Amino acid sequence: MNRKNFLKKHIYLLLVAFMTIVVIGLSSLTAYTPAQTVSLDPLPSWNDGATKRAIVEFVTRVTTANSPDFVSVEDRIATFDNDGTLWAEKPYVQGLFVLEKIKAMAAANPSLRSQQPYKAVIEGDVEYFRQAGEASLMDLLMKTHGNMTQEQFDTEVRSFFDTAIYPKLNVPVTQVTYKPMRELLDYLRANGFQTWICSGGGIDFVRQISQPLYGIPPQQVIGSTGKKEFIEKDGKFVIWKLPELGRINDKVGKPIGIDLHIGQRPIFAAGNERSGGDIAMLTYSQQQQPSFQLLIDHDDSDREFAYQEPDNASLNAAKANGWHVVSIKNDWQEVFAFPRK
Amino acid sequence: MNRKNFLKKHIYLLLVAFMTIVVIGLSSLTAYTPAQTVSLDPLPSWNDGATKRAIVEFVTRVTTANSPDFVSVEDRIATFDNDGTLWAEKPYVQGLFVLEKIKAMAAANPSLRSQQPYKAVIEGDVEYFRQAGEASLMDLLMKTHGNMTQEQFDTEVRSFFDTAIYPKLNVPVTQVTYKPMRELLDYLRANGFQTWICSGGGIDFVRQISQPLYGIPPQQVIGSTGKKEFIEKDGKFVIWKLPELGRINDKVGKPIGIDLHIGQRPIFAAGNERSGGDIAMLTYSQQQQPSFQLLIDHDDSDREFAYQEPDNASLNAAKANGWHVVSIKNDWQEVFAFPRK
Repeated sequence: MNRKNFLKKHIYLLLVAFMTIVVIGLSSLTAYTPAQTVSLDPLPSWNDGATKRAIVEFVTRVTTANSPDFVSVEDRIATFDNDGTLWAEKPYVQGLFVLEKIKAMAAANPSLRSQQPYKAVIEGDVEYFRQAGEASLMDLLMKTHGNMTQEQFDTEVRSFFDTAIYPKLNVPVTQVTYKPMRELLDYLRANGFQTWICSGGGIDFVRQISQPLYGIPPQQVIGSTGKKEFIEKDGKFVIWKLPELGRINDKVGKPIGIDLHIGQRPIFAAGNERSGGDIAMLTYSQQQQPSFQLLIDHDDSDREFAYQEPDNASLNAAKANGWHVVSIKNDWQEVFAFPRK
Repeated sequence: MNRKNFLKKHIYLLLVAFMTIVVIGLSSLTAYTPAQTVSLDPLPSWNDGATKRAIVEFVTRVTTANSPDFVSVEDRIATFDNDGTLWAEKPYVQGLFVLEKIKAMAAANPSLRSQQPYKAVIEGDVEYFRQAGEASLMDLLMKTHGNMTQEQFDTEVRSFFDTAIYPKLNVPVTQVTYKPMRELLDYLRANGFQTWICSGGGIDFVRQISQPLYGIPPQQVIGSTGKKEFIEKDGKFVIWKLPELGRINDKVGKPIGIDLHIGQRPIFAAGNERSGGDIAMLTYSQQQQPSFQLLIDHDDSDREFAYQEPDNASLNAAKANGWHVVSIKNDWQEVFAFPRK
């Protein structure tokens, strides 16, 4: 049989095999909402440069079956800080929620206006909190996050996200995610990675938006916790949020949180400089080899914000340990998905 | 074109479409290790009866696309107690580990033989623990689970599982899992459920065998915890297990653990009667509708063990709330996978 006849006779086989590949390919995309349409470049918002190349090289290396650095799917764990790593943190989104809630509480009960810490919040009295110290901020968190059922809190958070506007950028808070980082999450998942959030923010707060904003289900969110009880209330058993701090998932708390929720070291970990909050997580990840550590440097006052740690500890640690530093200014072609004003 | 000609012309299409279905079907099975070979009956170790029929009816109902009770894949969460629900608990496997470890500690340091609680353990002095109360048992746990790195503990647990024999049944401890329950885990996963363990046992202990014995990855294990620190030790940062109790994942601790690790109510929850340890978890699950609650009654002294709660609280709660009770004697055709002696 010559080639033409072979093709003629087997055209169905070829056609259906091709269709099958297309169908399987498409169905594997429906499991999450990609930040981009299908393209040959998995990271189109990243400028071509050392950081992007290093990411692609690492992912290729650990997912290539005959590579000495091949990592099996169940060990492809990636953990991401949230504030300043996946979305803007100037100010903290959860801080906006606390502010709005305190104002709503004072509107419902005007006598609170003359009581601290409500008074300081309403009057924007930053000096009060500076003098009262960290305990006063914790007190604020407990007053706004405790003494209610889990369902009540979830409803409040969702309604905040429905309407809240991010200051300075003047867009809905749900739009201040970094487009290059959402592409990175998609890219890792497309390569069999499990993506997790490991945030200093509250676990219950972040879980309300992890799926729609990042494609990360609630059970893959690690965060700070308050204490809770399972109690009977009005004839129904409920999860009751107590006004007491549980575990702080920041700094050395991050490896502990990862161990608690995942039980294994991430081979990919991403954080940012601001407070040294991610140094321990990146250190923990690096003890696993092969592994990849990413640290975002906020150096773009034009398109985002420029800020540094007083002691530069995170960038110093990155230099000493060979972590990959993202310069927002140089590495990101776009920062947000909304149009620049 | 008559029917015969149509078939002749399109035979490739039909053939390859059929092959595609077979290939996709097979590839969906490779993600976990099923307890059984492929069969028309997904629960062959269950006797035909009300319990088995209710399980199949529930799973069919929540997975049928046009059913009013359809539950989307991301909400198909199933939680299983471990001791007495997935494997035997007379005695507790983790208790055997503690015993073996205490004996090894005393062998390495003979002066411990005259000190409590080591002395009581070595001499099998149950009366000592009865008088010293629950605190003495906790002390035993801390002495055997704390003051070491996470890696050291994991290694000890794995080596225990390599050699330990289960008393009375005289088989390796890894063989005392219930075959019908492993089939149930497989059946639920084949229907898009996420299967979780929610055990009163230690999270670090259970995680070492959850994947090989039940096809449940470590990150889907919820259990009791000890406190930990991330510290530098001999020039390396490690997770250090402190000899201090963290959270007890039993009774009302179970809904709290599920909320912490999953962040949503299970629509399927399974536990057993012995101590009332699963009542809160099943109550919590039932507030979600549709949902299914399963409670195992250990009523088979011939093939397993027969035991009841002094106050019968679990079985009473099952009756009052319409939970499905598994009678091991009547509902299970087989209990274990190993041959009866």
